[in-house]
Amino acid sequence: MPFRARRPIMFALVGDSGAGKSTLARGCADILGADRVTQISLDDYHALDRAARTATGLTALHPDSSHLALMGQHARLLRNGETIFKPVYDHADGTFGRPQFVRPGAIVLVNGLHGLFTPELRSLWDVSVFLDPAPELRAAWKIKRDTATRGYDEAEVRQELEARRRDAEAFITPQRERADIVIAFRPPADHGRTNDDARLDVRIRIAHPIPLPDLDDLFAGETARFLRMERGTIGADVVEIDGGLSDAATQVVEDRIWKHMPAARHLRSARLGAFLDVGGERRSNPLAVTQLLLTYYLVKASALAEKQEQLADGIATAARAS
Amino acid sequence: MPFRARRPIMFALVGDSGAGKSTLARGCADILGADRVTQISLDDYHALDRAARTATGLTALHPDSSHLALMGQHARLLRNGETIFKPVYDHADGTFGRPQFVRPGAIVLVNGLHGLFTPELRSLWDVSVFLDPAPELRAAWKIKRDTATRGYDEAEVRQELEARRRDAEAFITPQRERADIVIAFRPPADHGRTNDDARLDVRIRIAHPIPLPDLDDLFAGETARFLRMERGTIGADVVEIDGGLSDAATQVVEDRIWKHMPAARHLRSARLGAFLDVGGERRSNPLAVTQLLLTYYLVKASALAEKQEQLADGIATAARAS
Repeated sequence: MPFRARRPIMFALVGDSGAGKSTLARGCADILGADRVTQISLDDYHALDRAARTATGLTALHPDSSHLALMGQHARLLRNGETIFKPVYDHADGTFGRPQFVRPGAIVLVNGLHGLFTPELRSLWDVSVFLDPAPELRAAWKIKRDTATRGYDEAEVRQELEARRRDAEAFITPQRERADIVIAFRPPADHGRTNDDARLDVRIRIAHPIPLPDLDDLFAGETARFLRMERGTIGADVVEIDGGLSDAATQVVEDRIWKHMPAARHLRSARLGAFLDVGGERRSNPLAVTQLLLTYYLVKASALAEKQEQLADGIATAARAS
Repeated sequence: MPFRARRPIMFALVGDSGAGKSTLARGCADILGADRVTQISLDDYHALDRAARTATGLTALHPDSSHLALMGQHARLLRNGETIFKPVYDHADGTFGRPQFVRPGAIVLVNGLHGLFTPELRSLWDVSVFLDPAPELRAAWKIKRDTATRGYDEAEVRQELEARRRDAEAFITPQRERADIVIAFRPPADHGRTNDDARLDVRIRIAHPIPLPDLDDLFAGETARFLRMERGTIGADVVEIDGGLSDAATQVVEDRIWKHMPAARHLRSARLGAFLDVGGERRSNPLAVTQLLLTYYLVKASALAEKQEQLADGIATAARAS
């Protein structure tokens, strides 16, 4: 049975602003059951409000503009099952709101800019994911979101993207090498014509310390046209999902992945692959499969954490008995 | 050398509202050096603001009106040398203010209503003190303070004292038995005539697990008229300080106690025994000696904590070497 480890399973989604962290997190939380997932945005750990960042010229990407030690402390406490008293940052106006108490559910899903920045943070995740979309996709996504919900206009967002480029390269991108899983969304060859976020290619790199999913059947038969797996020999395997993934093939892939999560099957009603586009919510097959694959890893990680605890308990019991 | 332990020394002052916690804490912090002492008021961990307490009828003495688990978590983090992000309660208007980051100094001095309420809290203090003034003194002190600085009138404070009596007996007083040290201020026989807070008798009960101060010379010679020590056989020693303690005897006592704290002698400029009375700040000899004795215990506790750490390090080193 998944998700029975006595401590929360800790899951981190890391990436630059506009990389798609919230969209992916929302999908995973839906699959896992919103009532069991505690979502934490590390933006709440900003050390400066928007006005102070403007005044100092320090971008939100710079580690000095985040309370990294407090992030680590709180992630450690959550992993230990403890309720935290945490700051709250309000993106609508760029100020700090009233702090909140947050109790960890069975799964803690953390997303933010610096989730893999410090050794302490890196030590706390059961699974960490770095989102690495093509730069032109990220720019378009960030413009879409920041103009719709954060009160910026397009010129301001483009200016901010430009101003942050150096800090992104210095502080955000290097975290990619620390992640268990790297997810890269890429425009397919015909993207210039369709410009459709629902049909992006996906490349998923999985570092070897994570146990490989037992999903060989995905890469054979009718779905092999859209999904490829390269078994890496030096540290990582790669799964590639074709942006043109058909509805029928998606259905087959979903059936197969759910088959490997029997204890979570009651969650199948989850609405997968949803994302916010200019016209409202839409659905993407490659995103749906990506969300489901990630969730599958979390289920695996949960079972692994439980086994490790049982092993540790067994050793401790044996030691006491001897 | 005192105060060299690598973790902060944790000191708790517990007692009912108006028991004199702040006055005693201020004096100890002055002696120890304000720059090395981090003061925490557990009132900041109120779960309800003043309006909510009024609406629900829950007093601040009731454990449900405090975030006891957060107190324990934060005390544990401070003891571990970590900075905390803590709530702030504003007594001036009874609301919550902006939370604060607090970094522990060499000494953490915590005062509050529930500092000995939970097993976790009790396990974290190097020295704990319960303040137990005579009820009529506490009432007078609380009226003096709450009318001067908290916006109440005398009738309101008397009504509050009456309303809180049951909760005080149920939740605050029992903590007395958990404290290492109990300090009881009592009006001397002639108090009715002079009504002078500067000349109160003091009775200090010291539980045995705390090492006895090496201060026998205090209880002999010219100061024996004012100070008595009863060596207890069943769990506690008692020091009694006569409210009529003269300036000359106070000077002798101070000289002797400071002699036992050579490494802290540069702190002798501290202004001891100060308390706020209606007419402004005044000075009390018994309070000065009480503050100095308490500080002496803290210095002892610090040396003890350091020895324990050295011992633990030694054992760990020996274990690694074998």
